[in-house]
Amino acid sequence: MSDLVITEQFGERAALKMLKSAVEKARELGAPDGVGIVDAGGHLRAWALMDGAPQIALDVVLKKARTAAYIGRPSGELDLPAERAAALSRAAADFVAIPGGLPVIRNGHVLGAIAVGGSDSKTDVVVAEAGISALDLN
Amino acid sequence: MSDLVITEQFGERAALKMLKSAVEKARELGAPDGVGIVDAGGHLRAWALMDGAPQIALDVVLKKARTAAYIGRPSGELDLPAERAAALSRAAADFVAIPGGLPVIRNGHVLGAIAVGGSDSKTDVVVAEAGISALDLN
Amino acid sequence: MSDLVITEQFGERAALKMLKSAVEKARELGAPDGVGIVDAGGHLRAWALMDGAPQIALDVVLKKARTAAYIGRPSGELDLPAERAAALSRAAADFVAIPGGLPVIRNGHVLGAIAVGGSDSKTDVVVAEAGISALDLN
Amino acid sequence: MSDLVITEQFGERAALKMLKSAVEKARELGAPDGVGIVDAGGHLRAWALMDGAPQIALDVVLKKARTAAYIGRPSGELDLPAERAAALSRAAADFVAIPGGLPVIRNGHVLGAIAVGGSDSKTDVVVAEAGISALDLN
Repeated sequence: MSDLVITEQFGERAALKMLKSAVEKARELGAPDGVGIVDAGGHLRAWALMDGAPQIALDVVLKKARTAAYIGRPSGELDLPAERAAALSRAAADFVAIPGGLPVIRNGHVLGAIAVGGSDSKTDVVVAEAGISALDLN
Repeated sequence: MSDLVITEQFGERAALKMLKSAVEKARELGAPDGVGIVDAGGHLRAWALMDGAPQIALDVVLKKARTAAYIGRPSGELDLPAERAAALSRAAADFVAIPGGLPVIRNGHVLGAIAVGGSDSKTDVVVAEAGISALDLN
Repeated sequence: MSDLVITEQFGERAALKMLKSAVEKARELGAPDGVGIVDAGGHLRAWALMDGAPQIALDVVLKKARTAAYIGRPSGELDLPAERAAALSRAAADFVAIPGGLPVIRNGHVLGAIAVGGSDSKTDVVVAEAGISALDLN
Repeated sequence: MSDLVITEQFGERAALKMLKSAVEKARELGAPDGVGIVDAGGHLRAWALMDGAPQIALDVVLKKARTAAYIGRPSGELDLPAERAAALSRAAADFVAIPGGLPVIRNGHVLGAIAVGGSDSKTDVVVAEAGISALDLN
């Protein structure tokens, strides 16, 4: 039996499509956001800091995206007590339990994640969803 | 259409005026403070650590100032639930939700920020306001 | 006399134009690069990690871009003796004397910078130049 | 015999006098510098980043000043082979063998240091000397 595992991931064109789609949604909503896309390994594949977005967004958005990619769940729906979430954040530099990070999942496998920060949590999630909707996963 | 955006900022003389004014107010109040001024990009333009000020002040004051400059609001009035503020502080190296950082805003644009630390929050804010009052923004 | 200084910078649309133009040039040259654009304050405004680019690119490219933005010269043409460049790299977290970072300058003022990493130095610089050429600075 | 050691140091007013004097000299020389003053413990007592100074100056100047304060010699005259200097920089986060940091010494005791960065080494040292000359050590 082969020792190989075949995985799927999205590439540079898909990451840039997600970025464009999310930025356009954020503009439509008047939401000055930072938007980041990471691959399954947590590496930042695409990023935009929109005019008026808070300049600390990169740190936070990268952690939201990595949390979603590494755990395979939205960064804001981890169902952890606040103290546990805080302890995990201190223990794992890339973990943050703040809404706005969404995993991209196909057939049960995480392909990566998109995360958005700078507006209220609800808007951040809508913008992130607009990014994912641009992907053709078939 | 040009890709340029015209912005205003304050320069070295303005930063040193703010520093002088804030230090004088702190002396008047008997408040041994650290006083820092950052530009819109978060770079420290002027700093003084007064006699008797806590020596950890630089780290904290720089974060207060950057928080105010990056988010465009006083560092102590961010209207965040305590847990969210704590999570953001862990996630973003420059973020802190502690009073004493005030943005310098003109026509809706952040020019930079001043922050003060070392006394009680109320005094820190009064000293920071004295720094801003020294600026001629016309 | 006003304490304000008028400056120019580029915004989100300009940063994304630079990113697109540089990525297209890199594809044309078959160069798998990381491409980053920072504003004058060193904040990352746009980023793409192309397929096949080394995953450490973000750290290096961000430092190249900040070096170019902070010093106002190409990161590879700083005319420093090798020992001094090495000492500066150890001393300043954002400094690196590696080619591939180009400042965007207009009327003697730095608006920001673009940096590219992942290929040989000559190609990195050509890709960065393609990014700058997309800007309309008039 | 008492276990106490009496030491002298300079205070906030002296640090701000040194800052002012150094900045004025730098303006006179047309040298856009970062100027920092530390006390004997290496804490930053005063700082100014002049218009046009490289934005990485804070990191480097702080290390030059601490090197001068901790070792009691000018940061550029440590007579170390380049490899030894590089090894020390890697081992000790605050050590850097770059000219521009001068200790303030009285009766054989280090009171603190001033450091300057942003111009050529010779100018940096002249500006630092102007800062020290403002001190009344009698």
